[in-house]
Amino acid sequence: MTTPTRNALTDVAGLRVGHATRAGGGGWLTGTTVVLAPEGGMTAAVDVRGGGPGTKETDALDPRNVVRRIDAVTLTGGSAYGLDAASGVMAWLEEQGRGVRVGAGPREVVPVVPAACVFDLGRGGEFRARPDAATGRAAVEAAAAAAPGSPVAEGSVGAGTGAVIGGLKGGVGTASTVLDSGVTVAALVVANAVGSAVDPATGALYGRLFAPEPARDGGPHPYPHPHPHPYPYPSPETHAAARERIARARQETAEAVGGPASPPMNTTLAVVATDAVLGRSQAQKLAGTSHDGIARAVRPVHLLNDGDTVFAVATGARPLDEKNPLALNDVLTAGADVVTRAIVRAVLAAETVRGPGGTFLSYRDLYGS
Amino acid sequence: MTTPTRNALTDVAGLRVGHATRAGGGGWLTGTTVVLAPEGGMTAAVDVRGGGPGTKETDALDPRNVVRRIDAVTLTGGSAYGLDAASGVMAWLEEQGRGVRVGAGPREVVPVVPAACVFDLGRGGEFRARPDAATGRAAVEAAAAAAPGSPVAEGSVGAGTGAVIGGLKGGVGTASTVLDSGVTVAALVVANAVGSAVDPATGALYGRLFAPEPARDGGPHPYPHPHPHPYPYPSPETHAAARERIARARQETAEAVGGPASPPMNTTLAVVATDAVLGRSQAQKLAGTSHDGIARAVRPVHLLNDGDTVFAVATGARPLDEKNPLALNDVLTAGADVVTRAIVRAVLAAETVRGPGGTFLSYRDLYGS
Repeated sequence: MTTPTRNALTDVAGLRVGHATRAGGGGWLTGTTVVLAPEGGMTAAVDVRGGGPGTKETDALDPRNVVRRIDAVTLTGGSAYGLDAASGVMAWLEEQGRGVRVGAGPREVVPVVPAACVFDLGRGGEFRARPDAATGRAAVEAAAAAAPGSPVAEGSVGAGTGAVIGGLKGGVGTASTVLDSGVTVAALVVANAVGSAVDPATGALYGRLFAPEPARDGGPHPYPHPHPHPYPYPSPETHAAARERIARARQETAEAVGGPASPPMNTTLAVVATDAVLGRSQAQKLAGTSHDGIARAVRPVHLLNDGDTVFAVATGARPLDEKNPLALNDVLTAGADVVTRAIVRAVLAAETVRGPGGTFLSYRDLYGS
Repeated sequence: MTTPTRNALTDVAGLRVGHATRAGGGGWLTGTTVVLAPEGGMTAAVDVRGGGPGTKETDALDPRNVVRRIDAVTLTGGSAYGLDAASGVMAWLEEQGRGVRVGAGPREVVPVVPAACVFDLGRGGEFRARPDAATGRAAVEAAAAAAPGSPVAEGSVGAGTGAVIGGLKGGVGTASTVLDSGVTVAALVVANAVGSAVDPATGALYGRLFAPEPARDGGPHPYPHPHPHPYPYPSPETHAAARERIARARQETAEAVGGPASPPMNTTLAVVATDAVLGRSQAQKLAGTSHDGIARAVRPVHLLNDGDTVFAVATGARPLDEKNPLALNDVLTAGADVVTRAIVRAVLAAETVRGPGGTFLSYRDLYGS
């Protein structure tokens, strides 16, 4: 396995990613991210494991149901209100004549745009500052304007703008891998969980213990084999200082919002993508096993107040080995691993936010990268 | 949170565990394990995540279906053939008059005995040496004969007798915890996975990185805070030696069985139990999130040739806080953690097997405990 150039969802040929970020004042700290399929669409499936999900058009993805291909997936802040962003994506797709043909005319289409939201209400200071159809349109237009294979911005952008994970600043992360078969598997996540990405006993990022970022371009493995430590573990002094700063930040947030900031709902979202040919049931299996990648990066997870949702999409450029009934296994394994790595990258890319909705420290500020 | 005396499934008051082990010659290396409910039964649910499951009476556990309580769960070796063990458990329960009442007489019952199997065919040398109804009866009789709160044998016993995980010897493991609310959450696993419990880069047990075994009886945490290393990591020399021995064992097995031993199917099974009052849908949520505990101890997991299945059972002695809609979260978190710990214990309790079906080295033999 190797890591492609971008280490991003856009390493799956044909996929584009666009962010619309709403931040920088006026109570805003939210946004929307769109994954846009190549012309002709992509196979898609979903697995919802959180106990407090907020989703739209997920039932259409059941492999027993009629829609075979979709053109876009929308991830958004704004909790259930923010699902309106998908309407802006639909409107743009309708203008392009992309969607399920339902009439004689080339523009008589219904685009199926599955969407899932994270909870970030009030994190910018204003409960009602949330994505709407215009935000969704801005995100899909940004995706459409991006050149194929473009890098994907990470951290506090798009649907990750207001993300918080275990009290630290969360955000968007992405990662990819190429299997020995040549199949690419990639993930884009919005990390915004009730649980923590950080082992409270050590300050280590859980995901790094499991799936260290592989070397790029054939370079050396990032930690000396066969012994990993001390790579994933910050020093005890750094960890102690971080704990103090987190306690102070919690206090600042409580003062800013006039009460404890601990939000009632969170949610980690992921889009796992591959250029393999997958049937819809295979894609659903991939969506399910990719949740294992969240479990390895976040603990606890899938709680009643997480809405953890994984979409799996396949562009269908590379057939799996038809003679091997277990050929999908490598894709499943990689799907979980790229999700773990993407969550680590999301947390490392996030930047500290101090605003009227609270103080959300970044891992990098506390522990370095 | 504290760890109860037994650190076992039997810390949930009223539950009994019985093993029937078939090993020691004649091609046998398999067995059956039964979890027996207290009189009156227990609430139960199931979540099947593996791609190659072998189960019986799992549809009856759907919360929408009629059966509300069950008397026993059967875990068994022997792949789908071994599910016959559940028939022996049914026969014993029928004799006790335990089961769903379907007629006027006290003995007119149908016991619903959900069961799941692991693949271990041929590991003792004889493909046809597998559990049957008599094995199931022996296991449930052993459970019934055990005093309440008895310790639970771990390692190569019962359904874990022939278990192999990532090429090393697997087996049965169990662990428990008591929440601050007083609720006990415990797990019993049969660790028999395609994936590995051991990080191939370091020799560390994945599960130890995530959920180190807590101190018993208020003693010190098993590794020095806040810095864990070197606790979970064997020395590079030990790891290198282990890799060599594993390669030799693979060779021995290939010679013993006349081909590569890598079995086509595996499966990790778990029973997660609590004394909390859970509705059937809550139990199903617990079964689902407990799979996260497998994901943290085994990588990769939930593959097409794993039949990973988790049963959740609740004896209903302790109501959750009704005023807190998130009260279940602590049980969910603990469920995943006790599964991770139980898998670590299973691997540490397993003993090396050298037989006509192959050589299966134990982690303890390779790395110490």
